[in-house]
Amino acid sequence: MTIQASNNNAWVIREDSAVEQGGIMIPDSAKKNQHKGKIISLGKLFSDTNAKLYELAIFNKSAGFEIEEEGVTYLILAQHEIVGYDKRK
Amino acid sequence: MTIQASNNNAWVIREDSAVEQGGIMIPDSAKKNQHKGKIISLGKLFSDTNAKLYELAIFNKSAGFEIEEEGVTYLILAQHEIVGYDKRK
Amino acid sequence: MTIQASNNNAWVIREDSAVEQGGIMIPDSAKKNQHKGKIISLGKLFSDTNAKLYELAIFNKSAGFEIEEEGVTYLILAQHEIVGYDKRK
Amino acid sequence: MTIQASNNNAWVIREDSAVEQGGIMIPDSAKKNQHKGKIISLGKLFSDTNAKLYELAIFNKSAGFEIEEEGVTYLILAQHEIVGYDKRK
Amino acid sequence: MTIQASNNNAWVIREDSAVEQGGIMIPDSAKKNQHKGKIISLGKLFSDTNAKLYELAIFNKSAGFEIEEEGVTYLILAQHEIVGYDKRK
Amino acid sequence: MTIQASNNNAWVIREDSAVEQGGIMIPDSAKKNQHKGKIISLGKLFSDTNAKLYELAIFNKSAGFEIEEEGVTYLILAQHEIVGYDKRK
Amino acid sequence: MTIQASNNNAWVIREDSAVEQGGIMIPDSAKKNQHKGKIISLGKLFSDTNAKLYELAIFNKSAGFEIEEEGVTYLILAQHEIVGYDKRK
Repeated sequence: MTIQASNNNAWVIREDSAVEQGGIMIPDSAKKNQHKGKIISLGKLFSDTNAKLYELAIFNKSAGFEIEEEGVTYLILAQHEIVGYDKRK
Repeated sequence: MTIQASNNNAWVIREDSAVEQGGIMIPDSAKKNQHKGKIISLGKLFSDTNAKLYELAIFNKSAGFEIEEEGVTYLILAQHEIVGYDKRK
Repeated sequence: MTIQASNNNAWVIREDSAVEQGGIMIPDSAKKNQHKGKIISLGKLFSDTNAKLYELAIFNKSAGFEIEEEGVTYLILAQHEIVGYDKRK
Repeated sequence: MTIQASNNNAWVIREDSAVEQGGIMIPDSAKKNQHKGKIISLGKLFSDTNAKLYELAIFNKSAGFEIEEEGVTYLILAQHEIVGYDKRK
Repeated sequence: MTIQASNNNAWVIREDSAVEQGGIMIPDSAKKNQHKGKIISLGKLFSDTNAKLYELAIFNKSAGFEIEEEGVTYLILAQHEIVGYDKRK
Repeated sequence: MTIQASNNNAWVIREDSAVEQGGIMIPDSAKKNQHKGKIISLGKLFSDTNAKLYELAIFNKSAGFEIEEEGVTYLILAQHEIVGYDKRK
Repeated sequence: MTIQASNNNAWVIREDSAVEQGGIMIPDSAKKNQHKGKIISLGKLFSDTNAKLYELAIFNKSAGFEIEEEGVTYLILAQHEIVGYDKRK
């Protein structure tokens, strides 16, 4: 993985998208409803020390914006758009 | 409980929702009117030391936004959206 | 009294409402016009040292929002919404 | 006088209103046009040391909001709404 | 001159208005177009040391607001509304 | 040149305007499209040390506002409206 | 290259534009969709040390604004408009 988040941003892959890469097809409309995702990269100014790489961030479904790179859809979130972490996975 | 609030957020369960888990059915419209809820998790940047885990926070009925996880509806509130605490319970 | 105001908020009971508890019925429309009220609780971040518990705060009639608890209507005001104090009572 | 201004507010009596108390009737519409008034109380956070109690403040006619107490109409102005002082009186 | 500007304000007389006092009549619409004026008073918080009393300030024609005192029309400008000084007069 | 910029402003002459003074007539619509201009004066609070008097600033075509003085049209820009410098001239 | 970015701006050439200079023609509509570009100049106040000259910045497609200089189209971005870096090139 060669993406480096800037400023106080987190790059996240929505949870369902990850599952999809494992072979199960999920319709796009369902994915847009997903409010959790795996943290892939954190910018140098991201200061909430509860955030850990590869753990799950929780956010408002409509927060952030998406960028597609090599077939993977990333969601870019500013620090204040992440409202919590799911520590079960 | 494995949810960890981020930044200056509080995760809250509206009081009626908690009662509902004890067996009494409450219509959704009534719950939306509820302006109190039990604090489940506080982010590291939540700085009002009057807030205590498992006590009741008071807030504007329309504040925050909700996320459902495993059948439980959580209300996410930023620190400034909590206007007081009910110290009776 | 077991309500604790949060942040820089003041919890206030409009002056007419207090009178009402003493037995005199006042129409709701009149109460809404009331721009004074007794301070019941002050948050830890309320920093104007002229504010005293149980004295009268003065505010714009349309400021703040109301919450009803056990039959009492409280008005929640942020510090900047209080414009003065009536030191006669 | 038992009113105490809060925060960075000034309580002012429009100049014409004061005259009126001396016996001359002035129509309301004329008073609303008045952009000067006597300073009655200054909050603890009012920091412009040119402001003096009982001197005249100058302000935009439409600035602030009014509160009536015992027959006297006060104009409440935040510090930044006062643009100058008339040092002739 | 007994006007004292407050805060970070400058009191200015538009250049054409000054001329008018010398006897030449200028229509109001022309004066409103004037983007220069003589500085009459500076508030204690006005911090740009290039500003000098009785020199000319330059500003956007539509900036600020006007107050008339004893037949003279003053323009009140906040510090950031002055964009330069004309050092020729 | 006797204009002194205030605060964090830069006074600029659009590049085409300068050429025009050398004798070539340029229609106004074309000049408005010009996003470069020579820096004539910098206010005391202009803090980007890459800016040099008489060099070219680059800005959004629609940024700032214009003032005409003695036949010359100046463009007034706040520091944040200048996005770069052309170091070729 | 003689452009110097100001303040906290980055000057960027969209990736497809760069390719185009190598001979392949790309329609304008496609270029506008490009969310990556090579960093050409960084202002003195650009503080994210992950940004490196001539590496690729990633940004929202609609962020910033464009300026054309000598046939090259530059995209001007403020620091907060860059959401990440692609470290593969």
